[in-house]
Amino acid sequence: MQDAGRYLAQMRQTAPLVQNITNYVAMNVMANVMLAAGASPAMAHAREEAAEFAGFAHALSVNIGTLDPEWITSMELAAAAMNEAGKPWVLDPVAVFATALRRDAGARLLALKPPIIRGNASEILALGGGAAAGSGADAGDTVESAEAAARHLAKKTGGVVAVTGAMDYVTDGERAYRVANGHALMPKITALGCSLTGIVAAFAVDQPPLEATVAALAYYGLAGEEAARNARGPGSLAMHFIDALHAMTPDDLTAGARTSAA
Amino acid sequence: MQDAGRYLAQMRQTAPLVQNITNYVAMNVMANVMLAAGASPAMAHAREEAAEFAGFAHALSVNIGTLDPEWITSMELAAAAMNEAGKPWVLDPVAVFATALRRDAGARLLALKPPIIRGNASEILALGGGAAAGSGADAGDTVESAEAAARHLAKKTGGVVAVTGAMDYVTDGERAYRVANGHALMPKITALGCSLTGIVAAFAVDQPPLEATVAALAYYGLAGEEAARNARGPGSLAMHFIDALHAMTPDDLTAGARTSAA
Amino acid sequence: MQDAGRYLAQMRQTAPLVQNITNYVAMNVMANVMLAAGASPAMAHAREEAAEFAGFAHALSVNIGTLDPEWITSMELAAAAMNEAGKPWVLDPVAVFATALRRDAGARLLALKPPIIRGNASEILALGGGAAAGSGADAGDTVESAEAAARHLAKKTGGVVAVTGAMDYVTDGERAYRVANGHALMPKITALGCSLTGIVAAFAVDQPPLEATVAALAYYGLAGEEAARNARGPGSLAMHFIDALHAMTPDDLTAGARTSAA
Repeated sequence: MQDAGRYLAQMRQTAPLVQNITNYVAMNVMANVMLAAGASPAMAHAREEAAEFAGFAHALSVNIGTLDPEWITSMELAAAAMNEAGKPWVLDPVAVFATALRRDAGARLLALKPPIIRGNASEILALGGGAAAGSGADAGDTVESAEAAARHLAKKTGGVVAVTGAMDYVTDGERAYRVANGHALMPKITALGCSLTGIVAAFAVDQPPLEATVAALAYYGLAGEEAARNARGPGSLAMHFIDALHAMTPDDLTAGARTSAA
Repeated sequence: MQDAGRYLAQMRQTAPLVQNITNYVAMNVMANVMLAAGASPAMAHAREEAAEFAGFAHALSVNIGTLDPEWITSMELAAAAMNEAGKPWVLDPVAVFATALRRDAGARLLALKPPIIRGNASEILALGGGAAAGSGADAGDTVESAEAAARHLAKKTGGVVAVTGAMDYVTDGERAYRVANGHALMPKITALGCSLTGIVAAFAVDQPPLEATVAALAYYGLAGEEAARNARGPGSLAMHFIDALHAMTPDDLTAGARTSAA
Repeated sequence: MQDAGRYLAQMRQTAPLVQNITNYVAMNVMANVMLAAGASPAMAHAREEAAEFAGFAHALSVNIGTLDPEWITSMELAAAAMNEAGKPWVLDPVAVFATALRRDAGARLLALKPPIIRGNASEILALGGGAAAGSGADAGDTVESAEAAARHLAKKTGGVVAVTGAMDYVTDGERAYRVANGHALMPKITALGCSLTGIVAAFAVDQPPLEATVAALAYYGLAGEEAARNARGPGSLAMHFIDALHAMTPDDLTAGARTSAA
């Protein structure tokens, strides 16, 4: 993909309002990540307002990290509103393999055919119906081992599926890309994966979902690489990462993106 | 106002216990902001303890950012307890214009006549009954356009109303001040506005609310200016901001406050 | 204790999955603290999954900071599951003295005989049935004044009780240690105490609880000392603290731990 920067430029020009129904751990860092990138995040989860809020949001992200039965209803209502309006939403199936509550939530949200799913390898394997070796929020499987499940899922939903890890894999069931950007210390910062899901949602507004997702992943990973240059551990990496998301130009992204057709 | 620093000195001497019923995005940064400033924050929202907690707190802040019907009841109970005891509380009507749930919460809390309201221009316009151009949590209106609504609201509640933005405006319906401190990058850090509401609550303990609010806003904006000197983006700004809140002396504040009668 | 570093090495080798049912203020920083240290944190609180999650977690931490009646049930279910499986859990009785809801939660969780309790002096005094001078989340009592209550509590539960403050005190009712590591600015960062509770839980997996707790407290305090060397306030301290937790080696800890039999 030659023009990752174009998607960043477009996202910043739109400054899309992205509704996030996400977990408590991620809310603050996700909002900071999205603001630094140039999007306008809003957290609104109450059943009484979830669909109404979705009515004027440009995109939605849904994350089952700290799940509660009440919230699943809100997620379904908001996702259905996005579907009806033809606006993008992204599912982040955090630890979907771990408990019955999560498996049920995953199945219910999958039934709404998410335009984009972003998860780690264990989550994509589990969501695709396979056995996953994950425990807690961490992947116990490699990205490679989840590629077939990703393609299968994408065909099932008619959407895009991204498996993130050391080397990301993104597919719409037919075509696929790999994204090599990123830094090994990033998983040591909590909720960076969750926050990426919001960035994917922002990039997907009015853009082809496969390419927009690839560009979002490259942008995120490249900011991590840039941040790692000045970091002395996960604490300073987190700070520099926000600065790097904010400072990166579309030209920086086009020059630094390491994507390839898979 | 010649003596903004006096209010900071007084707040630090009291180290007031401030109860905050606030949104999930803001809770952590708000607590850190208040601790750095010298206050003692506590987050307690359960209906079963909200009013009891208000009984021994020195001040209360109420924020509708990630609203839930259950929480509105807690907010009302705590606010009523503060009113009964003659202790200050501050309403932060986050995105009150956005959904029916928020408009209803805003109206119910307004009926309790908040001693202080702090919001952005779109929120103050909406709370005052006007049309607002905001979307999500961001203001779509200028501070200037909300000044009349602020005066109207202040007369209606008998309290103080602060509209924050590029140039803040604070009024009790009769008198008014403008506060010019602040930095353009501050809105790129999530929940800094929410956290300011807690600082206003802390400053208002046993102080005249108009002057205390003006001093709190100048303190906050000046810390942002100081932080920006060493920041390379919103990530490092957030870190330096906490340091600056902690390091600022009352004399620094008196020297750096840029307030004027409006 | 001559070999604090051994406990850190052991914890990192296990990389234990620790379930945390904790408060909203702490969730993000607690996850970052635990990841930086080398543990695998997971926040899962829903009644529908709390016990199921406990089934495969290696340890559990329970924190009543932003309590809700629903959550007490989840805490009880998860704690009971840990007890049944003989796995460690740690109670953090935040502001247990403050309201009836908290006193009730404290009593119910105490009845489950927590293998480890970690609190400030006011919390331990209150949990032990004494009068506490705390207000909000802050201790109003000295560690020394709570030592007898800690021994009493430890005998009652058959577990370990840690009182943290300027000089920590840890006892199993018979033996006791003091830990002198730490820095005066650490209480100015919100939820560092809560996050420590998760570190204690991680250290306690398959280790003697008294020594593991002492090692965890020394590790934490020493990281704070290291961080303070480069900090200019609580904002930069928080960042350097995460880096220091990540960078510290077992040898560093053994060399820097300042523990003594009490």
